[in-house]
Amino acid sequence: MALLPDQGTEIVIPVCAVIGIIFSLVQWFLVSKVKLSPERGGASAAKNGKNGYSDYLIEEEDGINDQNVVVKCAEIQSAISEGGFSGGATSFLFTEYQYVGIFMIAFAILIFLFLGSVEGFSTKSQSCTYDKEKLCKPALATAIFSTVSFLLGAVTSVVSGFLGMKIATYANARTTLEARKGVGKAFIVAFRSGAVMGTFEAITGYGLGGSSMALFGRVGGGIYTKAADVGADLVGKVERNIPEDDPRNPAVIADNVGDNVGDIAGMGSDLFGSYAESSCAALVVASISSFGMTHDFTAMCYPLLISSMGILVCLITTLFATDFFEIKAVKEIEPALKKQLIISTVLMTVGIAIVTWTCLPSSFTIFNFGAQKVVKNCPVQDVADSCRTGAATNVIFGLALGYKSVIIPIFAIAISIFVSFSFAAMYGIAVAALGMLSTIATGLAIDAYGPISDNAGGIAEMAGMSHRIRERTDALDAAGNTTAAIGKGFAIGSAALVSLALFGAFVSRAEISTVDVLTPKVFIGLIVGAMLPYWFSAMTMKSVGSAALKMVEEVRRQFNTIPGLMEGLAKPDYATCVKISTDASIKEMIPPGALVMLTPLIVGTFFGVETLSGVLAGSLVSGVQIAISASNTGGAWDNAKKYIEAGASEHARTLGPKGSEPHKAAVIGDTIGDPLKDTSGPSLNILIKLMAVESLVFAPFFATHGGLLFKIF
Amino acid sequence: MALLPDQGTEIVIPVCAVIGIIFSLVQWFLVSKVKLSPERGGASAAKNGKNGYSDYLIEEEDGINDQNVVVKCAEIQSAISEGGFSGGATSFLFTEYQYVGIFMIAFAILIFLFLGSVEGFSTKSQSCTYDKEKLCKPALATAIFSTVSFLLGAVTSVVSGFLGMKIATYANARTTLEARKGVGKAFIVAFRSGAVMGTFEAITGYGLGGSSMALFGRVGGGIYTKAADVGADLVGKVERNIPEDDPRNPAVIADNVGDNVGDIAGMGSDLFGSYAESSCAALVVASISSFGMTHDFTAMCYPLLISSMGILVCLITTLFATDFFEIKAVKEIEPALKKQLIISTVLMTVGIAIVTWTCLPSSFTIFNFGAQKVVKNCPVQDVADSCRTGAATNVIFGLALGYKSVIIPIFAIAISIFVSFSFAAMYGIAVAALGMLSTIATGLAIDAYGPISDNAGGIAEMAGMSHRIRERTDALDAAGNTTAAIGKGFAIGSAALVSLALFGAFVSRAEISTVDVLTPKVFIGLIVGAMLPYWFSAMTMKSVGSAALKMVEEVRRQFNTIPGLMEGLAKPDYATCVKISTDASIKEMIPPGALVMLTPLIVGTFFGVETLSGVLAGSLVSGVQIAISASNTGGAWDNAKKYIEAGASEHARTLGPKGSEPHKAAVIGDTIGDPLKDTSGPSLNILIKLMAVESLVFAPFFATHGGLLFKIF
Repeated sequence: MALLPDQGTEIVIPVCAVIGIIFSLVQWFLVSKVKLSPERGGASAAKNGKNGYSDYLIEEEDGINDQNVVVKCAEIQSAISEGGFSGGATSFLFTEYQYVGIFMIAFAILIFLFLGSVEGFSTKSQSCTYDKEKLCKPALATAIFSTVSFLLGAVTSVVSGFLGMKIATYANARTTLEARKGVGKAFIVAFRSGAVMGTFEAITGYGLGGSSMALFGRVGGGIYTKAADVGADLVGKVERNIPEDDPRNPAVIADNVGDNVGDIAGMGSDLFGSYAESSCAALVVASISSFGMTHDFTAMCYPLLISSMGILVCLITTLFATDFFEIKAVKEIEPALKKQLIISTVLMTVGIAIVTWTCLPSSFTIFNFGAQKVVKNCPVQDVADSCRTGAATNVIFGLALGYKSVIIPIFAIAISIFVSFSFAAMYGIAVAALGMLSTIATGLAIDAYGPISDNAGGIAEMAGMSHRIRERTDALDAAGNTTAAIGKGFAIGSAALVSLALFGAFVSRAEISTVDVLTPKVFIGLIVGAMLPYWFSAMTMKSVGSAALKMVEEVRRQFNTIPGLMEGLAKPDYATCVKISTDASIKEMIPPGALVMLTPLIVGTFFGVETLSGVLAGSLVSGVQIAISASNTGGAWDNAKKYIEAGASEHARTLGPKGSEPHKAAVIGDTIGDPLKDTSGPSLNILIKLMAVESLVFAPFFATHGGLLFKIF
Repeated sequence: MALLPDQGTEIVIPVCAVIGIIFSLVQWFLVSKVKLSPERGGASAAKNGKNGYSDYLIEEEDGINDQNVVVKCAEIQSAISEGGFSGGATSFLFTEYQYVGIFMIAFAILIFLFLGSVEGFSTKSQSCTYDKEKLCKPALATAIFSTVSFLLGAVTSVVSGFLGMKIATYANARTTLEARKGVGKAFIVAFRSGAVMGTFEAITGYGLGGSSMALFGRVGGGIYTKAADVGADLVGKVERNIPEDDPRNPAVIADNVGDNVGDIAGMGSDLFGSYAESSCAALVVASISSFGMTHDFTAMCYPLLISSMGILVCLITTLFATDFFEIKAVKEIEPALKKQLIISTVLMTVGIAIVTWTCLPSSFTIFNFGAQKVVKNCPVQDVADSCRTGAATNVIFGLALGYKSVIIPIFAIAISIFVSFSFAAMYGIAVAALGMLSTIATGLAIDAYGPISDNAGGIAEMAGMSHRIRERTDALDAAGNTTAAIGKGFAIGSAALVSLALFGAFVSRAEISTVDVLTPKVFIGLIVGAMLPYWFSAMTMKSVGSAALKMVEEVRRQFNTIPGLMEGLAKPDYATCVKISTDASIKEMIPPGALVMLTPLIVGTFFGVETLSGVLAGSLVSGVQIAISASNTGGAWDNAKKYIEAGASEHARTLGPKGSEPHKAAVIGDTIGDPLKDTSGPSLNILIKLMAVESLVFAPFFATHGGLLFKIF
């Protein structure tokens, strides 16, 4: 038996959750001290310091006492969040949740009907899967529990996405205002806000509902944000030569709303899903393990104890960023973020060792190989260089770089799979995934911090603040890029491990002994499964493309028909642009979502569990590659563009300045990369996990009634 | 026993081969009647007709009696073929074969050492794989036979590639000259030349050597042709606004040489490889089948009899294109090519039925599902439309379209695999592949006809012929595009089937019972295998990109430094451009080639046959998708550009004319597509086949000595 008594486990898990919630509320309270109301804004800002209290003379201050700026910031923030004149992030999310809600209810009914029908809706107990001599609860009970869990997961996912968005919009304008006092101040506000969100995610862990919700959040939000972004950039930056986030650009509000609904709400739901699924996978595998049979409560709760430990570790790590150290200059930001990753990983390794030692009956060793991959400087220079000869060579080099970037992560994933499997079979893989995700709160804080800083920059631009402030928010944003890439690598790597563990759980639940590639049933599943990520990416990319086309035409129309717009004398019609993004993303998220949700159902019902196993393996091994290469191709183009724009080296200056031919080629590459890195890539993570968890849920039905087509012929 | 007696089989196969050779020689003789020497050129051209004899007044004739044009054409043709002043296709192929020759010899030694070591170079007989009680030839004999076959296959592949190139360069200028007399004439010359090559391919069928040679041919040739093409287009068409193939462009000769070494010689070796491998796969599977055991000679020769039937069918089909019907207008070309595909498929279906009925002991049914996929007009219009908003949206739409295009072929492949496996297990799959390839001579004729027409157009431009002639050769070229896409679909589909059959043969030769995805050894192979096509594509694309960069810089330099070049007063330095392409392709083909050739050796030796099985399955299911999407993405961009340039509809005219912003965006897309559709895409076919056939050859070694790493730990 485990060292930690069952009563201890019962106390530790909820206590950690409560500590996490309290910590979040404290962080929120500190962020809220930055006032958005003009009467007291100047005064309180002058009082704020390192921890929000004193000592404000770190850097030169810009326009701290300009009350008009504060009013304007508050106005813009409300436009982004509440919609004011145009329908903002909140209203988009409500519309999105309405549509998805209908789908979720229909799917919940499906779950109930499919799983209930396994034993013909009988209320009698049946023999258990793992031990035919014991009696387990009736199939109807499984159906009811699964349906309720599904809905619960969906609601939790909605809540985590929505809260994240609320926190982010709450923080945007406050970061902008703090940037007047220097980067250090702004960094603390942005990071603290990220941490609020991160901690909220980490305390929940259950269900398919969360993951399917996440899919729609990612796809819908991804289409929204990229349509607006691509549309705004193509006309504004390339054609009209006006800066990013310029208030004259009609798509600028839609762009900022998009950051919040896509990068924040979508990502929040996504990572919640990963966390939920890896916990589920570990719990399911554990339930058919030795200590699952003996009902060793503490050992069974091992995955949840790791999550609890994760909350404490990330909480301590956050203090290093906001309270223990102090950021005085731009160049300190990126090291500070990297330090966050390192500190959390080191602490967590110790933490996991403690949890493992106290909670597991026998000694398990969990290896925590990462799928880290940072786009380094040299390849980016190559890509930037290729802009000399135009957009075409830039695109070719970027694609090649993205393809190349899969090599190391795939080897890392393969090694971690082999090692963790050798130690504890599928349970080892589930726990390895959990290990990778256990520092998720820190990862999410860094991830969320990026769009918050980006939005803060937008607000500064729109509020007409000085150049220096924009530079500071840009520095905050850029520093987050590299660390965000590491975060994405973790997300993809853990998704691969999670799916594999879920796949293993599915196979045992569906009572398949081997999945032999050389049987035609499995092989056709494998090749069709490998095709699915392409189909899915085709849909999402085309959606972004079409929506961006509409956006470009609308923005062009406004510049051509509204007199005085270019001169800044007339206001653009933001609302129409917001509507284009909203309509497009709501309409276009349905087909890819349906593809992912329906494939396991159709394959399982008509072709049976062997073919479904093939589909899961195929989509896993192919989806991981596309996800990694799409993210890194997009990232490389983005960085190449930033490299030219920054002009920090002699070499970079020969390619610039902004508006030069190489720079235009770089902007084209960056635009192509947007849907790859922010819509297709991240959604593919969800695709592979969701199909696996869905198969797991429906496994009893497929095992009993599946494979209709092969039964008929 | 089969209906056809063994003596019959012994006669039928060589007779068909001889008929094929005679037919090719007759075709060649007819092509050679178009004279390139000025003295008799006009006279004989005036005498040529439908079949090369009379009746020349089908269309208006342009400059038939201008002897200067004939001289100039002969000069340009010799420059492309022999190199004259610059080092042409022949000299490139010689250089390429030198480098590859060294590699081949080293690899032959490896084969001998690895296979010989299975029984420690013993000369004693050993028990057979399929029946432990019988005695088979010693491992040393297998090693010697394999090594000799390997070298023989390599030499055959070289010969087929080289002959194809020779025929193509022989036909280029002749097509141009015939185009003066109308499209019908030019079509017959171009197609007849294609048929010469097609028929030569179809009479040979053996070995790994052929396939590995093909790999280098494809990669080296692919890099050569695309570096020249991209470089020439980017400066010439986009920057300098001069037409394609303009003699003022320094890269124009390199571009035309590239067509012959890449599209013709590379493709010839590639399809020879496919044919050889599917025959091999069928023979190997058959050798361990019931009639293999009983040494039923006719049944064993079934794959070769299908090939022989294929020769006769394609020969008859060719006559339909050149002799039975007559082409009078441009719009009749494409239907004529499609008719070729249909006629050959119908005849071959009957032919296969006859062969099957007479030669197989029991009744086998072979389904011949195609992986047809034609990029239709409507999606191309979408892609063309997206050029309105710039290159970025064009690229996004093209990528999405390419991803989408994998759906139908993959379902088709999955269905054919399932059906053919159900009928005759792995033998069914091998025969299905052979069925798809049996009309290869026709497919190859259509494929080779494209670059011949393209080159003919280039020669017309360079020789300063009238616009009408260029229009005719363009029409010939464009008509071949759609049918070539069908051909590529067949090549990929058959490659998938061939690899699967070879994979099956490997598994039985390596004595593995099941390939279970859920064992970690197989799964890590699967995920790493799925990564290999990305690694390979990254290498080839980057190679094309770097070589194109160098080419662009050289072309720019020449335009800037050679006085009078733009005005046509000075000649450009073609030789430097040819050298850049040659050097780049020779240097850059080694790493991707080594990746493919060494992977099975390393994996088999260190990780063993289970992991190697995973790698083969993974690279197969992932490589097929990338190959299809790369080919179709490139094709869609190409067609979108052509659609705008042709300006055939009201809609197309709103996007044009040449030089407009949408057209420039389309050119960028087309340029990006070049390496995708002509270097990475086709090479991936070879990658999946070659790794499978190599594993098959080395299977006895891996089964005996493989998996060192797992044995040590």
